[in-house]
Amino acid sequence: MAENKTDAILDIAKRRGFFWQNSLIHGAMAGFYDYAHLGCLLKKKWESQWREFFLGLDDNFYEISVCHIMPEHVFKASGHLASFVDPIVKCKKCGNVERADHIIEDELKESFEGASLEKMAELIKAHRIKCPKCKGPLEETGILNMMFPLNVGTGADVRKGYLSPETAQGAYINFKLEFECLRRKLPMGLAIIGKAYRNEISPRNVLIRMREFTQAELQVFFDPDTIGEHPKFQEIENLRIRVFPAKNRDSGKIEEVQAKEVVKNLGMPKFYVYHMAKIQQFYLDVLKLPKERFRFRQLTDEEKAFYNKYHWDIELNLESLGGFKEVAGLHYRTDHDLAGHQSVSGESQEVNIEGKKFIPHVLELSFGVDRNIYALFELSLAAEEKVEGKEPRDVMRFPRLVSPQDAGIFPLVNKDGLQEKSREVQNLLKDHGFQVFYDESGSIGRRYRRIDEIGVAAGITIDYDSLKNEDVTLRDRDSMKQVRVKISELPEALKRFLNGEELENLGEMLKQ
Amino acid sequence: MAENKTDAILDIAKRRGFFWQNSLIHGAMAGFYDYAHLGCLLKKKWESQWREFFLGLDDNFYEISVCHIMPEHVFKASGHLASFVDPIVKCKKCGNVERADHIIEDELKESFEGASLEKMAELIKAHRIKCPKCKGPLEETGILNMMFPLNVGTGADVRKGYLSPETAQGAYINFKLEFECLRRKLPMGLAIIGKAYRNEISPRNVLIRMREFTQAELQVFFDPDTIGEHPKFQEIENLRIRVFPAKNRDSGKIEEVQAKEVVKNLGMPKFYVYHMAKIQQFYLDVLKLPKERFRFRQLTDEEKAFYNKYHWDIELNLESLGGFKEVAGLHYRTDHDLAGHQSVSGESQEVNIEGKKFIPHVLELSFGVDRNIYALFELSLAAEEKVEGKEPRDVMRFPRLVSPQDAGIFPLVNKDGLQEKSREVQNLLKDHGFQVFYDESGSIGRRYRRIDEIGVAAGITIDYDSLKNEDVTLRDRDSMKQVRVKISELPEALKRFLNGEELENLGEMLKQ
Repeated sequence: MAENKTDAILDIAKRRGFFWQNSLIHGAMAGFYDYAHLGCLLKKKWESQWREFFLGLDDNFYEISVCHIMPEHVFKASGHLASFVDPIVKCKKCGNVERADHIIEDELKESFEGASLEKMAELIKAHRIKCPKCKGPLEETGILNMMFPLNVGTGADVRKGYLSPETAQGAYINFKLEFECLRRKLPMGLAIIGKAYRNEISPRNVLIRMREFTQAELQVFFDPDTIGEHPKFQEIENLRIRVFPAKNRDSGKIEEVQAKEVVKNLGMPKFYVYHMAKIQQFYLDVLKLPKERFRFRQLTDEEKAFYNKYHWDIELNLESLGGFKEVAGLHYRTDHDLAGHQSVSGESQEVNIEGKKFIPHVLELSFGVDRNIYALFELSLAAEEKVEGKEPRDVMRFPRLVSPQDAGIFPLVNKDGLQEKSREVQNLLKDHGFQVFYDESGSIGRRYRRIDEIGVAAGITIDYDSLKNEDVTLRDRDSMKQVRVKISELPEALKRFLNGEELENLGEMLKQ
Repeated sequence: MAENKTDAILDIAKRRGFFWQNSLIHGAMAGFYDYAHLGCLLKKKWESQWREFFLGLDDNFYEISVCHIMPEHVFKASGHLASFVDPIVKCKKCGNVERADHIIEDELKESFEGASLEKMAELIKAHRIKCPKCKGPLEETGILNMMFPLNVGTGADVRKGYLSPETAQGAYINFKLEFECLRRKLPMGLAIIGKAYRNEISPRNVLIRMREFTQAELQVFFDPDTIGEHPKFQEIENLRIRVFPAKNRDSGKIEEVQAKEVVKNLGMPKFYVYHMAKIQQFYLDVLKLPKERFRFRQLTDEEKAFYNKYHWDIELNLESLGGFKEVAGLHYRTDHDLAGHQSVSGESQEVNIEGKKFIPHVLELSFGVDRNIYALFELSLAAEEKVEGKEPRDVMRFPRLVSPQDAGIFPLVNKDGLQEKSREVQNLLKDHGFQVFYDESGSIGRRYRRIDEIGVAAGITIDYDSLKNEDVTLRDRDSMKQVRVKISELPEALKRFLNGEELENLGEMLKQ
């Protein structure tokens, strides 16, 4: 295993085919990663769990798929043209450009994201911070727009466009059209899983801050007069939510507070808290990530954007990145977005519901997909295990529901019809929508090791008894225990296994 | 219904929420379309059928997911920097730029795609073709690179990148890394479903020629010495493939020729013909499109790129576009791509298999996803049906497997527990991976009409008998016939229905 955890993750990711930098043979550009064959499976699994869970919250939530290139007016309306800027400093000597807050952070070991330009200029001066590349003096701090501009068309018809820096705008510009199609009901949700592009000055931390990345966002449009209620609030009112309120910033204390108490004591409206609860359930009940790694962090007024009335980040504690890191956010954006598009386009974004006219408000559930994948890696990477009497093994403990493949199918030996039987089982499981693969090469122990290393949830072995009894062994990656399951019951058993069922409830346990 | 078929498609697409131009409220740019909630479902269904079918062809075929922005060297290696150009003419008077071949085609009603610049200049002169916008005189024909360039980073670190004009390069630059991960076996397949970007001078025909579009491509890397064989050729050798060989260009004759005869009489190698057969099976057996709308069209030496040794396009006959149109292609690209990347990067792309060293050759299966979606629309749009004694209805006859939703779930009335029972059925089907939705609003007839209009394959109704007998009615969108199915058997019945099973084989037929 490599020396530190980030290196270990990069090493495994590359060696086993999860992800690596784009265009390595041609000299990679910073901030661009490709998902290799296993990473692509893992990412699709995460996305499909996300889609199923969040679109399942309401019959009126739908996914749409929008262009990445959009015309300038969209970003005039969204505010990105004016405000989507990074603080930068340039080296007088070598011309190197750095993010001002990052080089201050590197020097002072404290975050200055969101600090004013003046503040940062002051800090650079006071601490005599130099160019990290050549130690030359730094120029004044300035700003740089982070969008990628493009010319679309040519000649007299050329128009200015941008690669979208977030998927959210795609939902806002489509709101009114979808509202009409979807029979004029609120709340209405539009989800987008798509790419976003930001010309980051200094991409960093592997998949955490990239220039091209994937977001999964759900924009919930609703009547602001109903923010104090949610029809299903009762179902989650006693759920203990792990919160790190702004008032605890000094103590660093994370609390577990019942949803109804988050409403009462922390002043968050029920419509907002309902979605906090659901997000927590996604991380802890669906993905089954360890509770103590998870928290909602309330942003202070200085930290949050002016248009976000309520803003808590979802953070996971990631050792390789030195602590809790943002992987998602829950933003009550008021009518900021639709009002902006209305004002720039001149097209009314108002709705008329039973005679009441208003611009709907937006609650945004925003997830960085790649950040979440990186977090899965970090949380799944176990140290090399040494079990007495057995060879040591490397194992990726991915949550069962998002492990890159559901199961490997192995004939014990390559003769006497075991291969054919294994293919039968493979086809049966494929037919039931499982992601499975077949492997007949090497000893059975070696094949188990290979799936342990890439985090496949289950191993299914076909042996001589399988031919007689129409059953197989199902092996759990984590406990390495095995159970005997009838082939006819295998699809149901594997489904329950992936959803977290204990092995002993799925069939007859085998002796080790 | 609108006056012509394209207008009818656009009208339905917009009114019902399939697709429309991006950023309509801000003044759409030509060549950019968003998929609305139904279109997004339809597109994902198509992609998931594609993925399942083509990745299922070989255990060593995998999907990867790559960046859209890539560094300049990639496109130097691929040839796009030098050769990915469109012939253009500019108007001397108004500055309007048009594709030279398109304005000639519009004038002469004949395709000149791929003609030389000289030839086009000659035609424009000979036929005195003017600017279509202002009737001004046209300048000399020239060329314009169709890629979107970008500056990545800033200051001294800036690098030139491009939005990728095809997904294929993403597979080539990752070939060697994946080959190592995947245990050095050929054939190896890398599939990518992703966006491609082309600054088309004149986007046209709705989803057919866009500036931002989705491709589904499979690159099969193989040993060129094995091109004369395919281990599964026997399985398809008698399949009659619908071909339009170059030699029939004058007669216009489409032939149905057995796969083995395509090898013998048309000189195509078995490895190539095997993939022709599989592509045809995808269109005719999985999607069940009408056979007479489908053909493989062989490109002549003048038409095909110099690096494609064999090239047949897959075409569908689309009335709204005036005849057969390309929706996919099968390209034997030799070692052109990997040799190019080797030469520019200096990194060997050779493999060593049992002592034999060579650069693998590539067979590319390339599908334009949006074109295929457009084709589905055109082929599924039925004229308004008038059945005696019934109200006329509009119906989209999407193939069952890719219809935007698998089924609508309807309580006959909204009382006496029918709603709860319907939700139970909805959850059961969701649990089994089906895409279903619930609708309780309006008469049952009205609800059937609504799903007919958007092409949902099945309607499932819960009535009073359902409470007693634990069964439902399953209604076929196309025949409007109904069958009674036990709830416990519904998941299996719906699955068989979607795969093309006749209704009468799924339960007891109801009298009309």
